[in-house]
Amino acid sequence: MVLERFMAKHLPGIERELDKCLPNDTVYPQGLHQAMRYSTLGGGKRLRGLLALAATEMVAKDRFGELEEAAYRLAAAVEMVHAYSLIHDDLPCMDDDDYRRGKLANHKVFGEAVAVLAGDALLTESFALLVQLEDLGVSAAVVTRIIGEMAEAGGSRGLVGGQAVDLDSEGRSISTETLEYIHTHKTGALFRAVLRCGAMIGGASAQELSDITKYAECFGLCFQITDDILDVVGDEAKLGKKTGSDIEQQKVTYVSLYGLEKARQLAADTMQEARLAIADYRPHSDVLCSLAEYVVGRDH
Amino acid sequence: MVLERFMAKHLPGIERELDKCLPNDTVYPQGLHQAMRYSTLGGGKRLRGLLALAATEMVAKDRFGELEEAAYRLAAAVEMVHAYSLIHDDLPCMDDDDYRRGKLANHKVFGEAVAVLAGDALLTESFALLVQLEDLGVSAAVVTRIIGEMAEAGGSRGLVGGQAVDLDSEGRSISTETLEYIHTHKTGALFRAVLRCGAMIGGASAQELSDITKYAECFGLCFQITDDILDVVGDEAKLGKKTGSDIEQQKVTYVSLYGLEKARQLAADTMQEARLAIADYRPHSDVLCSLAEYVVGRDH
Repeated sequence: MVLERFMAKHLPGIERELDKCLPNDTVYPQGLHQAMRYSTLGGGKRLRGLLALAATEMVAKDRFGELEEAAYRLAAAVEMVHAYSLIHDDLPCMDDDDYRRGKLANHKVFGEAVAVLAGDALLTESFALLVQLEDLGVSAAVVTRIIGEMAEAGGSRGLVGGQAVDLDSEGRSISTETLEYIHTHKTGALFRAVLRCGAMIGGASAQELSDITKYAECFGLCFQITDDILDVVGDEAKLGKKTGSDIEQQKVTYVSLYGLEKARQLAADTMQEARLAIADYRPHSDVLCSLAEYVVGRDH
Repeated sequence: MVLERFMAKHLPGIERELDKCLPNDTVYPQGLHQAMRYSTLGGGKRLRGLLALAATEMVAKDRFGELEEAAYRLAAAVEMVHAYSLIHDDLPCMDDDDYRRGKLANHKVFGEAVAVLAGDALLTESFALLVQLEDLGVSAAVVTRIIGEMAEAGGSRGLVGGQAVDLDSEGRSISTETLEYIHTHKTGALFRAVLRCGAMIGGASAQELSDITKYAECFGLCFQITDDILDVVGDEAKLGKKTGSDIEQQKVTYVSLYGLEKARQLAADTMQEARLAIADYRPHSDVLCSLAEYVVGRDH
């Protein structure tokens, strides 16, 4: 109930913020801006954006109203980083996917060259958005910390490193350690960064930051285990992509490692751990608790 | 003479700074880090890095020693942005170049997927380096301004926009306005940003920033006209790339627009204009003046 209210309020808000922050597609060069907007707007669960808002709210409590604009700007920035990573992941030389979120991949619509450039531009613009936090009530010292966290999470020892290892592992049998590296980097690092940055906007103490980091790491793991489960038991129509691709590509997943039942149990246990990490902040952490439940219970 | 001394001192320094700032190639995932290092180290004129240092020095004057470390960090960041843009430009789906600076292009050595990722990671890490300026004597408020300038210069209304229009113009006859858009964005924006950011590290006043911006815009134009001239009259061995490609691809250039002699005159006039913009700061602007001469007189 608390999450439904939160989503009803903030999902349209994130969409509006992205629409406002992305260059208009009437701005020259129009094709590039159309491509940037195509993959960023009108799709996706906005999990990263919602996490940004929920983390700021948990820490800021009654001051959330003052910081809402800043939290939205962070939400837009992280969704742009996510969109860039999906565009580049789908390229023929990478995962070679023709569809994303039930519509044609960026490069299928705009061509490979524009897709590469649209990704580059989204990544770059996300840093321009983070700089703007300073005009929205966040001190310059906190803004530089936030940019540092996002750059670290996105770089070769974060998201890009995870994707590099994932590509390198395709069709090969990999160890549990490598599987964990891929997940904590390819998806986990950005979840962790956006939760920490959201908390920093709220003015988090060292303790709050440490608790939300624990939550973030559990959240990332829940997310990934559930992703692996959905690839086996999910509904293609709801997911907007083919299932069974992990088995087909002989990927090591939590399901292939532990079996379906044990993977489900692991997801449930990790979800409880995430909730426990921020239990002391209730009711202000209720949304984050529900988001962890949501991510494990989702069907897409 | 002044420039020779400056280069003898700072070119090895920029190389050392890059070597230090880039993740070591023994760090996991090694292939990605090798690719990042391959295209960033051991090549290039380091023009952008030198401009960073010279701009800081012009403004900081006797305080340059205190700010040298910060200027070097900026130099490394801008050279990483430049390296990323070259890696992505050379991709088969973009300009499809097999050689760069006389050695195999990144994607020819590491494959397309790793080349895309190495570019992404270099761009991301460049922002991580800029954040570090705060530990090197630059105030957080100036650091956020610097990051904002670099993100704007690199984005869809800067470098990436210029590349998008350039690709779109291939094989078509374009107007002088489009030619100018491509140059001011694809190469000019980053020159402008790095000169302004270097000056900001030095603590530039509004007047100093405005004068260096004028210099930067002239410098970018000199650079481009000379590039166009070298594509016609240059020595392939010295350039490390094929000449005549503009004519072959029927590109509109300053030479095709104005003819060789008039293009040479335009380069010389613009170079004088660049020198004039910062003449009041002599002798502290001597290096920048010589760099403008150098860029017009170069044979590669």
